[in-house]
Amino acid sequence: MLKIPSHQVAGHHASNGTRGPLIDDSGLFYKPLQGGERGSAEVTFYQEFTANTKIPDHIRKFFPIYYGTKLMNASDGSEHMHLVLQDLTLNRENPTIMDIKIGSRTWGPDASDEYIAKCLKRDRETSSARLGFRISGLQVYINEEVGFYKPHRDLVLKSCVDDVRLLFTKFVSSAPFEGSDQGPDGGLASKVYAGANGILAQLLELKAWFEDQTIYHFCACSLLIMFEKGLALEGGSPNAQVKIIDFAHVQEGRGVIDHNFLGGLCSLIKFISKVIEDHDDHKIQDGDGQ
Amino acid sequence: MLKIPSHQVAGHHASNGTRGPLIDDSGLFYKPLQGGERGSAEVTFYQEFTANTKIPDHIRKFFPIYYGTKLMNASDGSEHMHLVLQDLTLNRENPTIMDIKIGSRTWGPDASDEYIAKCLKRDRETSSARLGFRISGLQVYINEEVGFYKPHRDLVLKSCVDDVRLLFTKFVSSAPFEGSDQGPDGGLASKVYAGANGILAQLLELKAWFEDQTIYHFCACSLLIMFEKGLALEGGSPNAQVKIIDFAHVQEGRGVIDHNFLGGLCSLIKFISKVIEDHDDHKIQDGDGQ
Repeated sequence: MLKIPSHQVAGHHASNGTRGPLIDDSGLFYKPLQGGERGSAEVTFYQEFTANTKIPDHIRKFFPIYYGTKLMNASDGSEHMHLVLQDLTLNRENPTIMDIKIGSRTWGPDASDEYIAKCLKRDRETSSARLGFRISGLQVYINEEVGFYKPHRDLVLKSCVDDVRLLFTKFVSSAPFEGSDQGPDGGLASKVYAGANGILAQLLELKAWFEDQTIYHFCACSLLIMFEKGLALEGGSPNAQVKIIDFAHVQEGRGVIDHNFLGGLCSLIKFISKVIEDHDDHKIQDGDGQ
Repeated sequence: MLKIPSHQVAGHHASNGTRGPLIDDSGLFYKPLQGGERGSAEVTFYQEFTANTKIPDHIRKFFPIYYGTKLMNASDGSEHMHLVLQDLTLNRENPTIMDIKIGSRTWGPDASDEYIAKCLKRDRETSSARLGFRISGLQVYINEEVGFYKPHRDLVLKSCVDDVRLLFTKFVSSAPFEGSDQGPDGGLASKVYAGANGILAQLLELKAWFEDQTIYHFCACSLLIMFEKGLALEGGSPNAQVKIIDFAHVQEGRGVIDHNFLGGLCSLIKFISKVIEDHDDHKIQDGDGQ
């Protein structure tokens, strides 16, 4: 049985009869091929990447598993080609998710003047040009009563530096913050962002690869970061994960590192490090935090 | 006695009665203030940076020492305000020098549409957009007979990826390469680029700071890299140095790292690492190179 994914925070959504991703019970995610060259470019990337023996396993884990393409009835009723991918939120009950588009620019040097002008405008209107990334969407699980905090996409995209900083704190808050005088507590920062299995450690692992790899330029790709608040509050591991998605604009690296992605990734790392630092209990208690 | 610097490889040059930098015998470098806001912005940067106690000493050494400003006769005969700086090539007899403008973009997000359009065009015409940096000029000391290899600025700026790679090899070649069938040997790569005092180690030191510092965005700044071939051929230390120059477009970081400079710096590091790798004797001899 195909259904509309519950936890999509950015991109086209399959509602109101429009075309968007679908999932099934077996853990597959069906993404309609985008129009023009984008759809075929994304298929080409997944095929090439899947077969590329130069990708280390510890890096491959950051990418959705690719199962091929399938011609099927799309969510809008039309017959359409889909990418068949791993459902990244499978078995997550109430995932807290953020979609972050990486890079201060979302165009490649070979793009047309018109396309560059369009992207440049968008990159300057959002935080991309200034921060090296922009938050495209997020949902933060609050509790069973409230459900999710999921600000409107347009509002998220307009975030300034301080807004972005606040969203990274809200993302790891343990108590409800909407309508509260106290503001987000960032109480799960150390559990979710820090630690050997935390978001930061995974981002640093990716960074080390990006400092060296010259195979791909991941133009206009996003990082998904996610965890389970329920597990964290129960004292267990929050199952924090980082994934890279959206490869319609990937280009060949041709011997040059992806300095645009890497720069944005380093900026993101700095933001997350700052939230960890600001919410480090040890720091408050005995001043030994960094 | 004021004179025109012998070893300038980029920027305005004080010849034919035009206004450009001057040096004196005491080790000072007089840089005419640029027109409009740029001149005062560069003075402001030097004043602020010099007084800023948050700059670690091991980072301060990468910057020219600032001695103030001076109203004096410029090289074109007019009275003009100059920055008084440390002469970076003082006591270097035949320096091999490269000027590298860092960043895939040379404009800041607050610049006017017109200025951005102008810079964007330039960044795309040169290697900046693709590589994250562009070589603005260089001179390579060949020997007493030949003097310097100093390709024309316009030719250097048009360099594609392969040209840039070749220039980094020419930069550290021990034998003459112009008119030779063999091409540049890159024979000084390990002495100049590698090692504890080499260019790479200095760039990595800078990189570590850029991963953390959120004070400045070094927009449109250049790195000067230089060494003395004579010393290297005599078996001594080539006195390899990295310096940052040209601060007319520096902006406040306001809590965000300079992802544009950092990305370009990482790309430069990768290029230089590749030359070291390609010219590593151990690799050729017994295959234990990296």
